[in-house]
Amino acid sequence: MTQTDAAPALTPSLVSPEYLLAHWQGNRRLTRRVIEAFPEDQLFTFTAAPPMRPFGELAWEVVGLADYVLRGLNTGDWSWTPPAGAAPPRPRRLLAAWDEQTPRLEAAVPVYPPERYQEKRDMAWGHFSPLDTVLYAIENEIHHRGQGYVYLRALGIQPPAFYER
Amino acid sequence: MTQTDAAPALTPSLVSPEYLLAHWQGNRRLTRRVIEAFPEDQLFTFTAAPPMRPFGELAWEVVGLADYVLRGLNTGDWSWTPPAGAAPPRPRRLLAAWDEQTPRLEAAVPVYPPERYQEKRDMAWGHFSPLDTVLYAIENEIHHRGQGYVYLRALGIQPPAFYER
Repeated sequence: MTQTDAAPALTPSLVSPEYLLAHWQGNRRLTRRVIEAFPEDQLFTFTAAPPMRPFGELAWEVVGLADYVLRGLNTGDWSWTPPAGAAPPRPRRLLAAWDEQTPRLEAAVPVYPPERYQEKRDMAWGHFSPLDTVLYAIENEIHHRGQGYVYLRALGIQPPAFYER
Repeated sequence: MTQTDAAPALTPSLVSPEYLLAHWQGNRRLTRRVIEAFPEDQLFTFTAAPPMRPFGELAWEVVGLADYVLRGLNTGDWSWTPPAGAAPPRPRRLLAAWDEQTPRLEAAVPVYPPERYQEKRDMAWGHFSPLDTVLYAIENEIHHRGQGYVYLRALGIQPPAFYER
């Protein structure tokens, strides 16, 4: 999050919107496998280290961030509305919400104009660009997924292979 | 890791080498704070969920991956040599190794030619580009750092703020 305010360097550059999408979707496939690896009765109850939240709640936060990004990409509205206070959904609905986002990301990420990806503005967490925010959402997902690996190990369950996407 | 074998799309694209560096160094600053948050006598001994490794060993793996990337960027040699079997160093030397890498990354990441970042070849873990490998090293760092957060919570220690870089 330390990109300067100078005009973005469009050339030379490395990551196309298609690459960004593939990077994210590869991570999402792995996170989905981690959700599925939890026994249904532990996903929203077990925590390896109180006061940490159960993995189902962490995954629900990840869904919320992807929703925020999707709304921003699709409407240009990057204002932050705290998620409604409803309890996170039980396993089947969590995965349904997850799967519903996948084609929406597939449609939205590659067509957002590269120059707009790099325009800084007031975002949910400060003065950032949409690109910063997409990368932050991916980081947040990897971060919580890593925590899910510890929870699974604490439950005696072998987590999915990290390198497999 | 699902980029196609087609010619890399240099335009339009999003991430400059300088941005990639800032993204990585921001993550490294946070990971360094997580290393420092551990009591010295727990860093290489405590695990929240056996058979997981203590956080010091996970951080040492992260140092090894950054070394692999540095050698590749600096010499073009991306062959994989398993790290020597020596035990990971105690806290002070771990942080010294960490800090020694920081200016080396600062020097190497921005000057590697963009077109070479995207050339696929036989890498440590398959047929990938140096860019894939840099992003994988960052993901692996975030993954293990997330695990460090659980360990700290299990030790009753408040981890550093995730959003602060």
